[in-house]
Amino acid sequence: MEIREMLYEGKAKRLYSTDDPDALYLKYKNSLTAFNAKKKAEMEGKGELNNMISSWIFKYLRSKGIDSHFIERIDELSQLVKPVTIVPLEVVVRNVTAGSICRRLGVEEGMKLPRPLVEFYYKEDELDDPLVIRDHAVLFGWATDEELDRMTEMALTVDSVLTELFSSIDIDLVDFKLEFGKDKEGNILLADEISPDTCRFWQKGTRQSLDKDRFRKDLGDVLGAYREIWRRLSEKKEDN
Amino acid sequence: MEIREMLYEGKAKRLYSTDDPDALYLKYKNSLTAFNAKKKAEMEGKGELNNMISSWIFKYLRSKGIDSHFIERIDELSQLVKPVTIVPLEVVVRNVTAGSICRRLGVEEGMKLPRPLVEFYYKEDELDDPLVIRDHAVLFGWATDEELDRMTEMALTVDSVLTELFSSIDIDLVDFKLEFGKDKEGNILLADEISPDTCRFWQKGTRQSLDKDRFRKDLGDVLGAYREIWRRLSEKKEDN
Ligand SMILES: Nc1ncnc2c1ncn2[C@@H]1O[C@H](COP(=O)(O)OP(=O)(O)O)[C@@H](O)[C@H]1O
Ligand SMILES: Nc1ncnc2c1ncn2[C@@H]1O[C@H](COP(=O)(O)OP(=O)(O)O)[C@@H](O)[C@H]1O
Ligand SMILES: [Mg+2]
Ligand SMILES: [Mg+2]
Repeated sequence: MEIREMLYEGKAKRLYSTDDPDALYLKYKNSLTAFNAKKKAEMEGKGELNNMISSWIFKYLRSKGIDSHFIERIDELSQLVKPVTIVPLEVVVRNVTAGSICRRLGVEEGMKLPRPLVEFYYKEDELDDPLVIRDHAVLFGWATDEELDRMTEMALTVDSVLTELFSSIDIDLVDFKLEFGKDKEGNILLADEISPDTCRFWQKGTRQSLDKDRFRKDLGDVLGAYREIWRRLSEKKEDN
Repeated sequence: MEIREMLYEGKAKRLYSTDDPDALYLKYKNSLTAFNAKKKAEMEGKGELNNMISSWIFKYLRSKGIDSHFIERIDELSQLVKPVTIVPLEVVVRNVTAGSICRRLGVEEGMKLPRPLVEFYYKEDELDDPLVIRDHAVLFGWATDEELDRMTEMALTVDSVLTELFSSIDIDLVDFKLEFGKDKEGNILLADEISPDTCRFWQKGTRQSLDKDRFRKDLGDVLGAYREIWRRLSEKKEDN
């Protein structure tokens, strides 16, 4: 396989075309950003950990019948993925209140929700990814009602599979962000990444963060937390 | 009827109990506020105009089968209303894009929407009335799914009646905010006010504001616009 031109450089990854029209080369960076890149750092080893963790999780989801853009991991920093047209909505699933929802709605942190909450945010850095209602997405052409239903359904399935997975390695899955894309047939596929950059992981029964909140809140040992997630996942199943 | 103690002083009105447990005395103030009261002014005559306009509209809605808390207008500044427990959600209906939605979502102003858009905002000044999705309201106990359905249905009916009404006096009803409350039987009733403080009115076919935007944007002659709305409404039907 031959890597061709860079198609997109984002905050955490670079995306390249390849000689295979059905495969993109996705390379993780060591950059860590928060608050829409108002806070930034470089962290040697972060890209590798997120690539390993995200690849592991997408393989695990595949084994549970949940397909994604993930094809295979290539090396420490990169993976092959199917090209999709990203739906410009970030899909957030929350099991426990934390982060922006507490600030926006004045609710306490750490409240277990009676059922998972699915939210859509318009993916637009310049607008700070605003929360939207379904009708905004439909009326402004970001997704159809059917696509929103499908993304909601898939997000809830991912939540139930990952909540159980992480529980088995002593972690509470507090919330996470997913992105979806459409392949050339118009099918909705899970895309982007699932990593400590995009999830809130709390050591079970405590509120000790093992994710990007360590960076957002200057809690220290960010990389140690990412490494710990990778250690627990990789010890879990020899050859996922 | 005897007016008793003041129950609540808001930004635009004061609410008093009366000797009738089924009636509150609602008195309009001359205060004009915008941007969550960061911008304020006193405007002699504003309270009277809003009281006249809001009373006129609630009577008109009643004649079209839409009930509200409105009982009757008492005098220039006040009306009698049924006491309700206000649902802490502001219900916004939009026919044309304008105001906050344009800033938040980066959409152009003045776009006619293919169908009316109904949004819920959590009524909490300290949080700047954030937009919410239906599940926020349900999960945090602000309204049930059935109540949200009922408010949506009533808001759309009000929109269709008022769009036609204002069209007949050469005004485009761009958007408006409603509040709902629950009476002692738990019925959802339209409450609060409907006035140039809570609606966007554009002179038909133009974007000339005849509402509180004149104050928000320092366009001048705020009171003249309110007076013009009242003139057109009151000329419309001798004895509504
Ligand atoms: N399979 C895919 N096909 C096309 N684009 C993708 C795919 N997976 C992820 N992307 C997009 O590539 C970018 C990944 O880089 P990232 O650094 O996370 O970007 P951002 O700064 O926008 O978050 C994101 O914009 C994401 O939406
Ligand atoms: N029928 C009613 N019963 C009880 N409260 C009401 C009723 N109608 C309106 N209200 C409430 O009374 C207050 C009206 O005053 P206003 O000056 O508009 O207040 P605010 O500053 O909260 O907007 C609002 O909080 C409104 O929700
Ligand atoms: Mg990203
Ligand atoms: Mg008010």
